[in-house]
Amino acid sequence: MFESAEIGHSIDKETYEAAVSELREALLDAQFELKQQARFPVLILINGIEGAGKGETVKLLNEWMDPRLIQVESFLLPTDEELSRPPQWRYWRRLPPKGKTGIFFGNWYSQVLVNRALGSMKLSELEQAVDEVARTEKMLSDEGALILKFWFHLSKKQLKKRLKELRDDPQRSWQINVLDWQQAKVYDKIVSSAELVLRRTNRDYAPWYVIEGVDPRYRSLSVGRILLESLQAALKVDNGREVNPHAAPLTSSLDNRGLLDSLDLSLSLSKDAYKKQLADEQMRLNRLVRDKRFRRHALMAVFEGNDAAGKGGAIRRVTGALDPRQYHIVPIAAPTEEERAQPYLWRFWRYAPGRRQFTIFDRSWYGRVLVERVEGFCSEADWMRAYSEINDFEEQLHNHGVVVVKFWLSIDKETQYQRFKEREQVPFKRYKITEEDWRNRDKWDQYVDAVGDMVDRTSTVVAPWTLVEANDKRYARVKVLRTINDALEAAFARD
Amino acid sequence: MFESAEIGHSIDKETYEAAVSELREALLDAQFELKQQARFPVLILINGIEGAGKGETVKLLNEWMDPRLIQVESFLLPTDEELSRPPQWRYWRRLPPKGKTGIFFGNWYSQVLVNRALGSMKLSELEQAVDEVARTEKMLSDEGALILKFWFHLSKKQLKKRLKELRDDPQRSWQINVLDWQQAKVYDKIVSSAELVLRRTNRDYAPWYVIEGVDPRYRSLSVGRILLESLQAALKVDNGREVNPHAAPLTSSLDNRGLLDSLDLSLSLSKDAYKKQLADEQMRLNRLVRDKRFRRHALMAVFEGNDAAGKGGAIRRVTGALDPRQYHIVPIAAPTEEERAQPYLWRFWRYAPGRRQFTIFDRSWYGRVLVERVEGFCSEADWMRAYSEINDFEEQLHNHGVVVVKFWLSIDKETQYQRFKEREQVPFKRYKITEEDWRNRDKWDQYVDAVGDMVDRTSTVVAPWTLVEANDKRYARVKVLRTINDALEAAFARD
Repeated sequence: MFESAEIGHSIDKETYEAAVSELREALLDAQFELKQQARFPVLILINGIEGAGKGETVKLLNEWMDPRLIQVESFLLPTDEELSRPPQWRYWRRLPPKGKTGIFFGNWYSQVLVNRALGSMKLSELEQAVDEVARTEKMLSDEGALILKFWFHLSKKQLKKRLKELRDDPQRSWQINVLDWQQAKVYDKIVSSAELVLRRTNRDYAPWYVIEGVDPRYRSLSVGRILLESLQAALKVDNGREVNPHAAPLTSSLDNRGLLDSLDLSLSLSKDAYKKQLADEQMRLNRLVRDKRFRRHALMAVFEGNDAAGKGGAIRRVTGALDPRQYHIVPIAAPTEEERAQPYLWRFWRYAPGRRQFTIFDRSWYGRVLVERVEGFCSEADWMRAYSEINDFEEQLHNHGVVVVKFWLSIDKETQYQRFKEREQVPFKRYKITEEDWRNRDKWDQYVDAVGDMVDRTSTVVAPWTLVEANDKRYARVKVLRTINDALEAAFARD
Repeated sequence: MFESAEIGHSIDKETYEAAVSELREALLDAQFELKQQARFPVLILINGIEGAGKGETVKLLNEWMDPRLIQVESFLLPTDEELSRPPQWRYWRRLPPKGKTGIFFGNWYSQVLVNRALGSMKLSELEQAVDEVARTEKMLSDEGALILKFWFHLSKKQLKKRLKELRDDPQRSWQINVLDWQQAKVYDKIVSSAELVLRRTNRDYAPWYVIEGVDPRYRSLSVGRILLESLQAALKVDNGREVNPHAAPLTSSLDNRGLLDSLDLSLSLSKDAYKKQLADEQMRLNRLVRDKRFRRHALMAVFEGNDAAGKGGAIRRVTGALDPRQYHIVPIAAPTEEERAQPYLWRFWRYAPGRRQFTIFDRSWYGRVLVERVEGFCSEADWMRAYSEINDFEEQLHNHGVVVVKFWLSIDKETQYQRFKEREQVPFKRYKITEEDWRNRDKWDQYVDAVGDMVDRTSTVVAPWTLVEANDKRYARVKVLRTINDALEAAFARD
């Protein structure tokens, strides 16, 4: 969920300054239009790791926009009057009216995350609180509110580095407060609760945006752009029909660096190392699926990736370790007539493995947020809601003991070109390459965006994505096998 | 929540037979149209008290309609194959395809209700299960499914009577099974869990219909009519735009007997009895709000009722018991400009009482499902979703210790006429009667329906409605005061 926000995004000063002046003007225009229409309020929720730039961003938004149309509300300790009433009262009384923007700096999320991290809230209480929040946000959205939720993120390493820098600088060391140090200690707890909270409350009508907080320019411009695009979309009146406003996802990162760009595609294995490691991992897998602890589990492996990234070869190396009765491969192509007559996830649910079974999906339910999104095979509303539906689906599998592993096999454009050409020239590989493959290649950048959004929104503790550097097939195959084995062992260890 | 289903609805044979032949034809037409459009599936969930006619109704629907287009699925003990997979798998595999109707006889609700009643499920687990169900139903609805949920109801008395009849009849005593007896024993537990479950999952896209199960004719015709109306609404294609199908609420009971008709409006108090009881109850209220246990609570009283039903007089008798600093009256008229710029419930939230405070609402948030519904001041979607939003609101108040009491003061049409006339004749009462009152009176029947739906959907354990027989003002005033006092004492006892 936080993958894309840990890769060190940054923007140079020149680019930033050129972008900002344009952005500010457009934001002011949108703000004015919002006031004129007075049709809905905007609610911005600010959350995240301490030190990731929450306060600075709020300050900046006030500088950039007309502060008379923005109300910043911070919710620290409740007042006596607030304590005397139901907890939601303090938020209700400070909701922005139609035409205005409210920035809730500290809000219903902050409280539960802190309580959970400090151990004063049980998991079941957290889940109930989150469901209550989700109902409230649904209601606010039904009442017309445009809701944007930002999570300002730092990796653990980034947080520690920042704290160290501050401590070593006598002029700035006063900026560190006790809370910062506490947060560093409970970082893992906060992030794992945050992951659950974001996953459960990331709905199409109130999406989360995870912003990497290290570089101030990147951070500020990202928030500004998301806010602007969401405002403009919501202010549009569609053929006289007012659209229920909801935000569009960010389509590409500002510095043109996505998650996939952060991979080191030069990783490779020598032939000898490959032979040895492949044999080791295959033996390990064979042992694990025959382990009696596997009786309480099942395994589901999802293979997605660029065309010609080597999914088939990787799958064969996995199944090569096993008896054919031990696994089941489900290749996903266009849905059958029977499948089209059912809800989207039905075609995948039907193949859910029983205990002790291993199902391999060659392409999967992620088609909805990849090919269907890029090709426009379904509406934006459909693929937007798919992220949370998929998370629910995988959580149900996980809760039943199914180990879910998901691979994106990544190659660069040049490698794909060479493999396509090779396929065209080798007679027995020719069937593998079609006109469609070349067409898909033209949409390379759109797929990069879609993959980034997919991983950010569906890589969870219960079902994480593994990005596989696949320019070198040997390296990719071993990484896939090793990941499956590690996931199984981790699941056994948790029992 | 079950009020309307305990008043002894029934339909005579002649009316029934005349209605059925027409209904069957229309149902077959709708079914055929559903198949032709093949645009969405219909999912009917059957739940309720044992012996309330669930099985008979399913059988009848199969007789009335084309059984080739209906699949009845019953979910008793899961098979080995099902146990081996996540719990939802068994439901997914039997979902009806587009164009067909699936009747789930036993379903995700049955399991949790039984487990909860038998004590093997904690309240927090129940709440989590319910939230998961709500997410699944939202997803199915987003995928196009028309979802209808029926709760077949018997009051405890009706259930016991039925069991006794069966037991005493040697030819039918075999029909009672162990489960029936068990249910009679755990009736209160089942009904209180069911109340929570229905409240949480009663959403506009998947509404619950509570059906009184005593009279087979009433029961069958009600289900048939609801199914027909929902189907027809969902099959309608609105100006070429397919509407996301969801069911409309039933607008009136089949036997023209609503909850309000079941009131005995002849109830009255003599002047002497009134004086004595009023003084007693006022003294009791005065004592209760000064009780130190009230420090942990607050009190919120809602007054709704027919025009001229005596709300003002009743409120004065309540406040007459108190020091003016102890209460606050909020008269609800048209919203102010500031209030119109906020979500609907904002204007009520702002007056939420702090601890030890008592707020009286003269008309309330129920305006949305009364006058706004009847007069068309808001869209159907808006007032439909209001029921569950209101339940959420009142539950938040309750969880904070606020005692919520709600009164509907009911008079008959004749009494209202006399009071209107009297108001016109008495100079100092003339300001109380306007043209609008006479206009509202023309919509008497629509208000009867709206009040019935309101009570059925929002009378909950945490915030029950009290219907007050108000033809006799003295009787009404004492009942109001006594209800408030009882509610306070019950809350203190629970502490």
